[in-house]
Amino acid sequence: MFTLTSPSLSVHSLSRSGLSAAKLLKEKGLSPVVLEARDRVGGRTFTVRNEQTKYVDLGGAYIGPTQNRILRLAKEYGVETYKVNEEERLVHYVKGKSYPFRGSFPPMWNPFALMDYNNLWRKMDEMGSEIPREAPWRAPHAEEWDKMTMKQLFDKICWTNSARRFATLFVNVNVTSEPHEVSALWFLWYVKQCGGTMRIFSTTNGGQERKFVGGSSQISECMAKELGECVKMESPVYRIDQTGDMVEVETLNKETYRAKYVIVATAPGLNLKMHFNPELPPLRNQLIHRVPMGSVIKCMVYYRENFWRKKGYCGTMVIEEEEAPISLTLDDTKPDGTVPAIMGFILARKCRKLCELTREERKLCITNPQPSLAQPVHYEEKNWCEEEYSGGCYTAYFPPGILTQYGKVIRKPVGRLYFAGTETATEWSGYMEGAVQAGERAAREIMCMMGRIPQNQIWQTEPESKEVPPLPFVTTFWERNLPSVGGFINFLGVASVLSVATTAGLLAYKKGLLTRMHYF
Amino acid sequence: MFTLTSPSLSVHSLSRSGLSAAKLLKEKGLSPVVLEARDRVGGRTFTVRNEQTKYVDLGGAYIGPTQNRILRLAKEYGVETYKVNEEERLVHYVKGKSYPFRGSFPPMWNPFALMDYNNLWRKMDEMGSEIPREAPWRAPHAEEWDKMTMKQLFDKICWTNSARRFATLFVNVNVTSEPHEVSALWFLWYVKQCGGTMRIFSTTNGGQERKFVGGSSQISECMAKELGECVKMESPVYRIDQTGDMVEVETLNKETYRAKYVIVATAPGLNLKMHFNPELPPLRNQLIHRVPMGSVIKCMVYYRENFWRKKGYCGTMVIEEEEAPISLTLDDTKPDGTVPAIMGFILARKCRKLCELTREERKLCITNPQPSLAQPVHYEEKNWCEEEYSGGCYTAYFPPGILTQYGKVIRKPVGRLYFAGTETATEWSGYMEGAVQAGERAAREIMCMMGRIPQNQIWQTEPESKEVPPLPFVTTFWERNLPSVGGFINFLGVASVLSVATTAGLLAYKKGLLTRMHYF
Repeated sequence: MFTLTSPSLSVHSLSRSGLSAAKLLKEKGLSPVVLEARDRVGGRTFTVRNEQTKYVDLGGAYIGPTQNRILRLAKEYGVETYKVNEEERLVHYVKGKSYPFRGSFPPMWNPFALMDYNNLWRKMDEMGSEIPREAPWRAPHAEEWDKMTMKQLFDKICWTNSARRFATLFVNVNVTSEPHEVSALWFLWYVKQCGGTMRIFSTTNGGQERKFVGGSSQISECMAKELGECVKMESPVYRIDQTGDMVEVETLNKETYRAKYVIVATAPGLNLKMHFNPELPPLRNQLIHRVPMGSVIKCMVYYRENFWRKKGYCGTMVIEEEEAPISLTLDDTKPDGTVPAIMGFILARKCRKLCELTREERKLCITNPQPSLAQPVHYEEKNWCEEEYSGGCYTAYFPPGILTQYGKVIRKPVGRLYFAGTETATEWSGYMEGAVQAGERAAREIMCMMGRIPQNQIWQTEPESKEVPPLPFVTTFWERNLPSVGGFINFLGVASVLSVATTAGLLAYKKGLLTRMHYF
Repeated sequence: MFTLTSPSLSVHSLSRSGLSAAKLLKEKGLSPVVLEARDRVGGRTFTVRNEQTKYVDLGGAYIGPTQNRILRLAKEYGVETYKVNEEERLVHYVKGKSYPFRGSFPPMWNPFALMDYNNLWRKMDEMGSEIPREAPWRAPHAEEWDKMTMKQLFDKICWTNSARRFATLFVNVNVTSEPHEVSALWFLWYVKQCGGTMRIFSTTNGGQERKFVGGSSQISECMAKELGECVKMESPVYRIDQTGDMVEVETLNKETYRAKYVIVATAPGLNLKMHFNPELPPLRNQLIHRVPMGSVIKCMVYYRENFWRKKGYCGTMVIEEEEAPISLTLDDTKPDGTVPAIMGFILARKCRKLCELTREERKLCITNPQPSLAQPVHYEEKNWCEEEYSGGCYTAYFPPGILTQYGKVIRKPVGRLYFAGTETATEWSGYMEGAVQAGERAAREIMCMMGRIPQNQIWQTEPESKEVPPLPFVTTFWERNLPSVGGFINFLGVASVLSVATTAGLLAYKKGLLTRMHYF
C-alpha cells in the first residue's frame, strides 16, 4: 500500500489547494492523507452559519469569469453561484463627498485627472503584458522593476494626487498591503495573472462578480467529505524528516505519518512552522522568511432593511478617506433579498491600526460615523492577522528585490516535498482559483514522478466555464489614445514656460528619468 | 523551586542573548534552563578549531570600542582581544584597478565625487541623529523615511555614480542586504545605534577593530560551562503553551519543560518555528513574517605566507566589481603572525547567486581570478543562508513600511513570554553586543515582574571598557562645510545654463522633491 501524506494541506492554503491535490490523487487511485492544522477545512475561506446571517463568508468569497477550475469544482458539487448586486449606482467617496457612478472604476471629471487615470491603468497593463505569468523574474525589465516599490512606480506614472491616491487604494484592495511595501514587478505580475486591471478590480465581469450560494467553504467541505477518513483535523505539522526511505511527518497531536511524497500546501511563510531534516536548501530557507501575508479584517454589518437599494445605490462604496476604517464595501445581501448586509474591508495600514482593538471597539469604529443611517442589527468580522496558521490574508506579497532573487524556487520540489498553495499558482494566484490550480499541479508532479503521466501533462489548461463566461474588456479609442499628462504637456509646448524648474530638471536627470523613458 | 525555561536560547540568537539572560538570572539566584536548538552554543558566532587554522570564526567575530557589554563578559572569562591588522595600506578596487589608501573610507580624487561622498556620510548621520534608538518609529520623519528604500534615498542624495555605487557596498557590508530591499528609516536607525557611519564601518576605532584571541564562541562556551547542566543542547522548541499555570514548552527531542516565565531569544523570524497556544497577538503574528535575515557566506582563504603585508598591504580590500564574489576582505592572520589568512564576505545579491553552489565550486570562484598570486593552502567557509535555525546572517532587516507599522511590538512581552535576541537591542543591535544587551534586559524584565528590581532598573547603561576605549571621530572643517554637489551647482549659478532640462524639471516637482527640501 502507498500512502501520500500531505501535511497541513488545505488548512494553511487559501481554501483548497491541499484538498484539491488530494482529491485528484484519490481519483487516480492513490491514497492521500490530508493533515489539516485547524479545526476546520477551507483554509483562508471561512463560512460561518448562524441564525442572524444564515451563512456568511468571513474569508475568501468572490469568484468570477476565467476562474474556471474553482467553477468546475463548484459545478461538480452542485454549489451554485449568484451575482453580487451591482444593479444600482456605486459610490465613490472622496474628500468628504459621495459621487455616485456606474462601471468598474470611478469616473474623473477633471481632464487632467482623466488623462492621468487612463494612463495609469494603460501603463500597468502594458507593463504587465511584458511579464511571463509562470516566470515573472524573466521579464525583460525584471531587475529594474523589482528594485522599485509600487509607490515609486506610481510617483513616476502619476501626475495628479487623485490618481496617486486611487492607485494606493487599488493596491490596498487587491493585495491588502501598501504600495511602498510591495515590489512593482510583483504587483504588476499579480494584476497581470488575474487578467489585468479591469478583470481584477471589477465586480461585473471581474473577480468580484459572484459568490457561492451557501458560502465558499462548501467546496472544501464537499471535498473533505468525499475524501472521508483520510482528512485529519487539528493536526498541525511541526516536523518533516526526509532522511529515511519514507518521508516522516509529525503533528502537534503526536501522530506520525509516513509517505512516499509530501505536498506542502501552505502559504510559503507557513513552511516555517515545520522543522525540516535535512534543512531546506538555502534559497528556499530564506524565501520563506521574505513573503509576508497581507493585512485585512473582513467586516459584515447587517441591517433590518436594504435601505441603500431603495435610495438607488447598489451597496458598493470605494472610500478614499484616511480616517475611514473601511476602504471598500460590497452588498452582501442574500440572492433572494433576505438578510440585508454590507461587507467592508479594513485593509493594510488601516488594518494594522485597528488590529489590536476588540471586536466591539471595531464595530463602534465602523458603525458610529453614520448615526443618521439605519442602525445595524448584527455584526460579524474576521481579523485574519491573528490566525497563526494563516499569518494574514488574502495572500503573500513580495517586498522589493525578492521576486528576482528567490522567485524561481517558489514551487521547486525539495527531495520528495512538493509545493502547492495559491501563492505557487500562475493564474489567479492569491485566489481560490489559484489554490486549485496549484494543488492539482502539485498532484500531477507526483504522478509524473511515479511514471503515471508524462511531464507535459503536469500543467493543464482548463476549459472555459459555460455558466460564467468572460466577456472581453473593450477599450475605446480614447482609452487607447488619450495622452498621458506628460505627453499632453509636451504636445502643448508649455514646457518652455516652465523654465524656472531648471535646477529640479538636473535632479530629474540624475534620478534616472532616462531609464523611465526607456520602459514607458 | 522556580524554573525559567528559555526556549532555543542562544542558538537562534546572535551568539549569546539567551545565555547572557540565563547567566544574569542564575547570578540572582534563579534557576533558568536554556534550550538550544543546535548541537553547539554560540548562535550566529561559530568558532571552528582544526589543525590548519588553529581556530577560526566563521560567524560573528569582530568587536570594537563602545561594545562595552561583550567586552565586560570577555574580561570576566579572561578572553583577550587583538587588533585586526590595519598597519599597512588598504586597497580600494574599482573599475578594474586597485587604489591603495589609508583611513576608514577610500578617498576620492574627483572633486565632485569628493563633495558627493562627504555629503552622503554627513546626511546619513544627520538623519540618524533625529531617530530615537529605542523607538525609531517615533522619529519626526519616521513615516516618510520608512516608505522609502535606501536605494531611493541614495538616488536622492547622491549625484555621482561612484557615490551611489559605494553607498550600495556600504549597505551590503553592514546589513548583508541590498539598498532596494531595506527601509531607509530602518537602515539609518541601524547605523545610528552603532554610533554612526564612521563607527560602524571602521576597523581602527570602529566595529571591526578587534577579534577575540581563541575565537568568539569562547564567551558562549564559558557561559554555558558556568550554567552547566541547565543548558540543553539539540533541543529545538516547537510548542509554547501559556494556557495553564506554568508555561509549557516542548522540544523536538520530546522533552517537556514547565516554567513561570520564558525568554524567546531567537531572531524574530525564528519565533515562527514554534506553535503558540494561545496564538500570538495579531501584530506580533505578522511582524515575525516581515523581518528576514540578511544573506552572507563568510570565507577564509589560507596561504603559506603573508605576502600582502610584505607588499605593503594590510589585507583589507573594498571591492566594487559586479563580477567579484567578495565585496570586503580583512586580514585574518593570527595575532602572533602565524596562519596567514584573508577573510572575505560574499554578500546579499552575490550571496544569493553563489548560495546553491557547492563549497568546492565557491572556493574556485573565489581563488581562481588570481592565478598569479600565491596559491591557497586551505579554505574554510560558512553559508549562513542554509542554517534553518539562523535563517541567514548577520541580522534581520526591515523592508519598507514595517518598522513604523510593527516595530513597537519587537520586544513587547506576550503574557509570560519575553523577547531577547540582538534584533531587540538598542545599541549595536545586530552584533554580539546587542545580543548581550537584549538578553540582560529581558532577564531584568522578568526580575522586575517578580518584584526583585524596580522598573527603572530594567534598562542599564554599561561603564566604558578601559581596555578598549573609544576615540571620538573628529570631523574637519571641510567635512562639515563642504557643499553637496547640488549646493555647489546652485552656488555657481550654472543652473541657468541647464534650462534644456525643463520638462524633466516638472517631473522632478511631481516626484516629491519639495519633500526632499523639507528634510535635507
